[in-house]
Amino acid sequence: MTASTPPGKSLRPRLRADAARNRAQVLAAARTAFRELGTAAPLDEIARRAGVNIATLYRRFPDRDALIAQVVLDGFAVVLDAARTAAQTARTDPLGALETFMLSLVDNRETLVLPLIGGPVTNDPQARDLQRQIAAALEEVLSAARARGAVRPDVAAVDLITTAALVCRPLPHLPQQQAATLVTRHVGIFLDGLRPNTTRQLPTAPTHEEVAVHLAPGPPEEAPPSAASDR
Amino acid sequence: MTASTPPGKSLRPRLRADAARNRAQVLAAARTAFRELGTAAPLDEIARRAGVNIATLYRRFPDRDALIAQVVLDGFAVVLDAARTAAQTARTDPLGALETFMLSLVDNRETLVLPLIGGPVTNDPQARDLQRQIAAALEEVLSAARARGAVRPDVAAVDLITTAALVCRPLPHLPQQQAATLVTRHVGIFLDGLRPNTTRQLPTAPTHEEVAVHLAPGPPEEAPPSAASDR
Repeated sequence: MTASTPPGKSLRPRLRADAARNRAQVLAAARTAFRELGTAAPLDEIARRAGVNIATLYRRFPDRDALIAQVVLDGFAVVLDAARTAAQTARTDPLGALETFMLSLVDNRETLVLPLIGGPVTNDPQARDLQRQIAAALEEVLSAARARGAVRPDVAAVDLITTAALVCRPLPHLPQQQAATLVTRHVGIFLDGLRPNTTRQLPTAPTHEEVAVHLAPGPPEEAPPSAASDR
Repeated sequence: MTASTPPGKSLRPRLRADAARNRAQVLAAARTAFRELGTAAPLDEIARRAGVNIATLYRRFPDRDALIAQVVLDGFAVVLDAARTAAQTARTDPLGALETFMLSLVDNRETLVLPLIGGPVTNDPQARDLQRQIAAALEEVLSAARARGAVRPDVAAVDLITTAALVCRPLPHLPQQQAATLVTRHVGIFLDGLRPNTTRQLPTAPTHEEVAVHLAPGPPEEAPPSAASDR
């Protein structure tokens, strides 16, 4: 490995350690900047926060859309991991699995820059795909729970996603520990509300697709994302 | 009533119609500006949005803290009204009363610029007093509910306040109707989770005072909050 690795398409498979570190730093800085300043956060501000040259940022991410897409994809990947873990443990303890799912997202919320918690929407078709997989894993949890008679029949994956979104946004001004306790209590009460023999009639849930279309507007042929364009 | 009403402390009791209108416009503009830009929102920007002269703004509110305090107090007053309505109807249908309480706050969230939903903290002792009254009214609802065996013993007013805060922040990117449906479902499930015969053990709740101290730090001599020190 030499110092003269050429930039371009073939760079990524053999990223040197410092290049990988730069890339991670840029993504971490972008996560913070998008959360604080929105998608319009200046790229040179992101480079500054990452401690890298703006040219280095462009070498890793050809344009703003590519950077946004990667940050959002990373967030969805964290959620998918948590949802799959829940699906694995749901057979023995479905409500426990959902509790672990929710609270692990709260614990990792700094890495979650997702549309429903205030992050940007991306056109990247991979985002839509990850969302489908997340919904599928959560439906698997609910199926296992229904098979045990452990949850109300009218709960859907979209309710779990909504709840995760609500609890992942920090309660402002409170000390972290106190906010965490209150959110844990909220999640506990919500989970008890999932049990059968309900009293509240819920309005009809939107389908996963109805929600997702607003959070990842679809494949390139529908709406060409600039992220896919070479520069 | 003349056109030459002098400015100052004695103005308020005899506000003319246009002065009252100006005041309401300034408060409405401040609500929006504080939500969008934080407590540091420039006062001349607030005056501009309100369509009034900056001098007019200063005639109604001598400084930034006075304006912040009034916006926050107005928000707490809306919550207190809703909590008192809930307390009145709790005897016959406590969970229904809580549902109405939560959803009426969601409906009115544009008027709620409160610490827990991202609004500023104020030193105004009236804020602390309103918070106490809100907590008392909600405890009254819970007492009525407990007397009917309608709620779990371990739920506290602070849980209802946390939940109201979580659901009052809009779910981003979703169409309003869809977000409203999802929040209504969330509230319904949460309320069913309040029923007795629970399965989840909740961590010990912070007391109302432990939470409130971060949201209205009391008179300036106790603990000047940094949130109010940005002018």
